[in-house]
Amino acid sequence: MTDHHLIETPGAHPVGIVGAGLIGLGWAALFVHRGHLVHAHDPDQDVLAGLPQAIETAIAEIEAVDGPRRAGGRLQCFSGLCEAVNGCAYVQENAPERLPLKSRVLAEIAESAAQDAVIGSSTTSFTARELGEGQARPEQIIVAHPYNPPHLIPLVEIGGAGEDYKPAINFAWRFFRALGKEPVHIRLPARGHIANRLSAALFREAVHIVSEGVASVEDVDRAIVHGPGLRWATAGPFLNYHLGAGRGGLAAYLDHLGPAQEARWADLGDPKLDDETKKLLVSGMNETSGGADIAQLSGERAERLAAIRLALAGKS
Amino acid sequence: MTDHHLIETPGAHPVGIVGAGLIGLGWAALFVHRGHLVHAHDPDQDVLAGLPQAIETAIAEIEAVDGPRRAGGRLQCFSGLCEAVNGCAYVQENAPERLPLKSRVLAEIAESAAQDAVIGSSTTSFTARELGEGQARPEQIIVAHPYNPPHLIPLVEIGGAGEDYKPAINFAWRFFRALGKEPVHIRLPARGHIANRLSAALFREAVHIVSEGVASVEDVDRAIVHGPGLRWATAGPFLNYHLGAGRGGLAAYLDHLGPAQEARWADLGDPKLDDETKKLLVSGMNETSGGADIAQLSGERAERLAAIRLALAGKS
Repeated sequence: MTDHHLIETPGAHPVGIVGAGLIGLGWAALFVHRGHLVHAHDPDQDVLAGLPQAIETAIAEIEAVDGPRRAGGRLQCFSGLCEAVNGCAYVQENAPERLPLKSRVLAEIAESAAQDAVIGSSTTSFTARELGEGQARPEQIIVAHPYNPPHLIPLVEIGGAGEDYKPAINFAWRFFRALGKEPVHIRLPARGHIANRLSAALFREAVHIVSEGVASVEDVDRAIVHGPGLRWATAGPFLNYHLGAGRGGLAAYLDHLGPAQEARWADLGDPKLDDETKKLLVSGMNETSGGADIAQLSGERAERLAAIRLALAGKS
Repeated sequence: MTDHHLIETPGAHPVGIVGAGLIGLGWAALFVHRGHLVHAHDPDQDVLAGLPQAIETAIAEIEAVDGPRRAGGRLQCFSGLCEAVNGCAYVQENAPERLPLKSRVLAEIAESAAQDAVIGSSTTSFTARELGEGQARPEQIIVAHPYNPPHLIPLVEIGGAGEDYKPAINFAWRFFRALGKEPVHIRLPARGHIANRLSAALFREAVHIVSEGVASVEDVDRAIVHGPGLRWATAGPFLNYHLGAGRGGLAAYLDHLGPAQEARWADLGDPKLDDETKKLLVSGMNETSGGADIAQLSGERAERLAAIRLALAGKS
């Protein structure tokens, strides 16, 4: 099996990257930083030509959090998909989110990668079941969904579509663990996987609160950042309730405060993103950001993220 | 007006604390740390007797994040409510979450505090409208809801029930700002205010994901901590989408990805906290925590929280 070798001697065997937009670039930077030989392909020659310099910027961001890059990591760019993935035991696919396109790209990868290769898709929208339709060996194609940006956020959600996927899932789990990522297992295919379902649930109520006039866009954001967001960076929702009910833990919480929780659920909204609502949200966002440049706001967020990750290192 | 004096010379005028359980204790510690003279009352003599020592522990936790306590802060305990709040320009009420009890306590506070005092209720469950029912001057009684623990989490949600509440809201906003808290304004009374509505929305989908078998309790918690939680400690939900759509910002996000967001909303679950579900969640939590002591887990979470708050200081 090549997979052991890939994990144990990362620089000796290539990891494939297909699609080198923002997500593929983040993955490539991470793999190189961790000492892997990365074979990257993108159909856009300009994207491919800019990749070597772009990943250096991203690697510098990784180094600020995770320390110096490991020896042996390097990037090779290929204008042909087949040459890029030829012999790769793991390939990360980052094609645009259109199922027919993804299906075609995944089939091409499977044809040229190692026989027992695992192909992880960065897909946000599709499940492993959908990705596997019409593929020769669907059980080698799994969801491996990062949380943006992939080189700085530890989460990766991996999932197959049944028992046949176990070897691929097991390999991916070990592979991502060895990279220092935090894999979670999507046990059953679900629209939006795990994190984006939870984010969507929160966002729906955020939109509801603003559209009902309960709070401004700015105050909803500030409430999250200075309240629950701080808590969720230290403990997940279940652990927070487990720790919020004294000695009885989650069982006591659910018994005593479950009815209050259900009453809150019943009161949550079901807004629509119609034109009026969109206008309200955008005007609220403009007030909040005071016209600040998106690149600047993004840089400030990245700085805060790096500071938090450094602060938490060794404390998880 | 006494309120200016309270903010400008904090040690010279008392701030009242009524109810000195976990929430009241956190508030008392924060006020003392910020240099206020705190007059505290609790009907339970044992709670009151233990308060001076308990707030020292909490103040040490504050000092680890916010630096040394300001001069002039001190605690005085009163077995009578009227003596405690007598002459106070601000009183924080932390009685148990039963409306008739809270109403009675709030009326007693209003009778003995300064004529134009502002009374902030730590209530989780009730709105300013409910708290004001039957009160002589409802517009002096506002929601001032902390996020637990009040001495370490910056958020405080303040809200009234109409135009008449403006002076009280304005005062509370300045008072909490001067304390270094992060107030947000609940513009219209709403069950669960802002943060707990958003948390409830996320928790509902977390319960749904576990009860459908999509992921384990442990992996839901890990997905949040290593993914969206990290992001929400650096930026709120609206800013995250604003920064996730390139130069077009939130408007572009809503136009391009709004339909995908709505499709996800349509797929979210509506679970019930019935016995079977509660059993599943508790057994998942037990697996996750591996039987670890609640006090120990809680201490570790507090350590991570302090590390994050320190890392973010000066970066917001």
